[in-house]
Amino acid sequence: MTKFAILGHGVVGSGTAELFFMNKDLINKREGFDLELGYILDIRDFPGLSYSNLFTKDINDILSDPEVKVVAEVMGGVNPAFDFVKRCLEKGKSVCTSNKELVAKKGAELLKTAREHNCNFAFEASTGGAIPVIEPMHTCLCANELTGAAGIVNGTTNFILTKMIEENMPLERALKTAQDLGYAEKDPTADIEGHDACRKICILASMISGKHVYPEMVPTEGIMSLTLEDAEYASANGYALKLIASVEKHGDKYLPLVAPRFVSCKNQLAHVTDVFNAITVYGNGFDEVMFYGKGAGKLPTASAVLGDVITCAKADGTVMTRMWEDSTDDSFIEKPEHAVTRLFVRTTASKDEITAAMGEVTFLKTPERITGENAFITAADEEGLLNEKLSQLAGGVITTIRVLK
Amino acid sequence: MTKFAILGHGVVGSGTAELFFMNKDLINKREGFDLELGYILDIRDFPGLSYSNLFTKDINDILSDPEVKVVAEVMGGVNPAFDFVKRCLEKGKSVCTSNKELVAKKGAELLKTAREHNCNFAFEASTGGAIPVIEPMHTCLCANELTGAAGIVNGTTNFILTKMIEENMPLERALKTAQDLGYAEKDPTADIEGHDACRKICILASMISGKHVYPEMVPTEGIMSLTLEDAEYASANGYALKLIASVEKHGDKYLPLVAPRFVSCKNQLAHVTDVFNAITVYGNGFDEVMFYGKGAGKLPTASAVLGDVITCAKADGTVMTRMWEDSTDDSFIEKPEHAVTRLFVRTTASKDEITAAMGEVTFLKTPERITGENAFITAADEEGLLNEKLSQLAGGVITTIRVLK
Repeated sequence: MTKFAILGHGVVGSGTAELFFMNKDLINKREGFDLELGYILDIRDFPGLSYSNLFTKDINDILSDPEVKVVAEVMGGVNPAFDFVKRCLEKGKSVCTSNKELVAKKGAELLKTAREHNCNFAFEASTGGAIPVIEPMHTCLCANELTGAAGIVNGTTNFILTKMIEENMPLERALKTAQDLGYAEKDPTADIEGHDACRKICILASMISGKHVYPEMVPTEGIMSLTLEDAEYASANGYALKLIASVEKHGDKYLPLVAPRFVSCKNQLAHVTDVFNAITVYGNGFDEVMFYGKGAGKLPTASAVLGDVITCAKADGTVMTRMWEDSTDDSFIEKPEHAVTRLFVRTTASKDEITAAMGEVTFLKTPERITGENAFITAADEEGLLNEKLSQLAGGVITTIRVLK
Repeated sequence: MTKFAILGHGVVGSGTAELFFMNKDLINKREGFDLELGYILDIRDFPGLSYSNLFTKDINDILSDPEVKVVAEVMGGVNPAFDFVKRCLEKGKSVCTSNKELVAKKGAELLKTAREHNCNFAFEASTGGAIPVIEPMHTCLCANELTGAAGIVNGTTNFILTKMIEENMPLERALKTAQDLGYAEKDPTADIEGHDACRKICILASMISGKHVYPEMVPTEGIMSLTLEDAEYASANGYALKLIASVEKHGDKYLPLVAPRFVSCKNQLAHVTDVFNAITVYGNGFDEVMFYGKGAGKLPTASAVLGDVITCAKADGTVMTRMWEDSTDDSFIEKPEHAVTRLFVRTTASKDEITAAMGEVTFLKTPERITGENAFITAADEEGLLNEKLSQLAGGVITTIRVLK
């Protein structure tokens, strides 16, 4: 018999137990083994559940049971999760986590610990919820040089932007609706300011670059500066407006970024609406693949956690996860101002003034109710140079938003 | 040192060698091992290549070399591929294949042979080219009961349908264009009659049902009966027209099907254009995920083959792939006439006659140049019952196309 344990009985933890008991017979028959849930660690009591007998308040119960081969960490936060995870790995128990903050801040160290103790540190659920992306990058895409990724990895902000574009709903009201539906927290800062997306791109960027990309290395912009007018320009000109977490290889460096983007409707990401997530990965053999699905929620996230648990149980003794090195400085990180991009720009300047300052641009169709301004998309150039030219525009710039390649 | 061999030096085989040599240093550094290409089997001579020394005409060279742990079979066809693959597996060498015909016709037997000899039979490249879908179903999604899949798995027909919808190009001319661009074979039968898609849905349906679904169990319709008028109705009413390979769980049975479908623009599959492929998988925990990318081509397919090779090399001694049982009859297969569906219908009958025969339906907007007919989408009902009602329609039916859920 192989046992696994769950650390934390919140939304994801209880979902992981629920999904396991729902599909246990099928899983064990299909995989040809005998997986059991051995323990659930939580400081709270949960009397009256069919599996109340599995609860413990002492991590040592789990650490000292040799039948426990895999531990699912779904507590969230760095403390005490980091300590618990590290001790499990040091005992040779594989750990599977949904904790993006833990991976974004401590991933390099925990991957190293896992390898030293011949076990796995898996984190499929940390990025994109139910969506398979981490494991496929470790396996299916491993013959390639990975050159970048771009994704919609925060469901709350995508829901808000969808409401703005499709229903012309102002941002504040869309946020209120998201909160009423339980998609956004009472304090929505982590979502709307891009911090949640930042942690997820840290994970993808670390996998792609092979060096740990820490949150403070990622220029991060949220969605609060976006207006209905921006959304209307996007719709009227064949674009969607999305919060994109991305990383791009530039020479020997990597540019991680979380920022609102104009996304052409020819790009699959433009069609990802509501709370759905999607991540496109780029590589030198396969070119591009996109993964799409539910980025959050009880059972969807549990699906990813439990998938890792089963895979780690099957791989017992084989280290499947790829490592990345810790990074001592940010010399491998490129700055946005040096990257080539195109910008969407709204300005009160005249078309003649725009052409004089910017050279050739693509003027956009102005939505009906908007007057007294012009909007255009620049030619591709280094972002720093584009901003320098824009600063010379008589009449001033109302807003600029980067265009996704 | 771990060696792998390639059986066949056609488009995919030469691509696999090319991608390996392109990324070899990176792969070996990243995975921490020492993978070498040991042999390429082909009856032809390829003088003047940088790796011409690796060619052999004798499978025994590969079978007898204990350093060869993994073999990539990219010959296509059942013979002699089946014999070679079986002998490799019996020697305990894992096999990775892009050969959809081999998997669709011999998958159950080869998976069993692999398990008996403690090695893997992997086939990521057989379905969806570069797109990760098989391995994620084996790993990331393995905590779920899988309840179905629907995909655009043939790039040639998707290219033709895209031309029909977006450029109003008649089917025959779109097919000619596909041939001119190298997307379609001179004899395009396997693509346009749905046989290629049929083999791929056999593989997905076998994984989902746990029993081998053979090609002859799959009702298969191609795209040759589709007209520009059908495509115009789709566009005018918020649908795309796609060749969909699908499998759905119905009670204890499974319904596999290859057929043209009306796909709502709210479904991600509607936005998959040109030669791109995409596969949506359904399950009881994650709900739905979609995988999108290049379904064919030299390096994209090589990416999937070589990804399997590396994963099998890492998993040496651990059987990662899930088995399915062989099927002795088709009693687990549901027939389309018993499944609940909605139909798109064009008829010369009047709206009153339609309502009298069919009950409540959704009438569609008729594209400008089409006259003398009505089109509608039925309510959801058993397909057999719907067709019975349609047969009573005075005026006759011009065409019916199933609507994807």
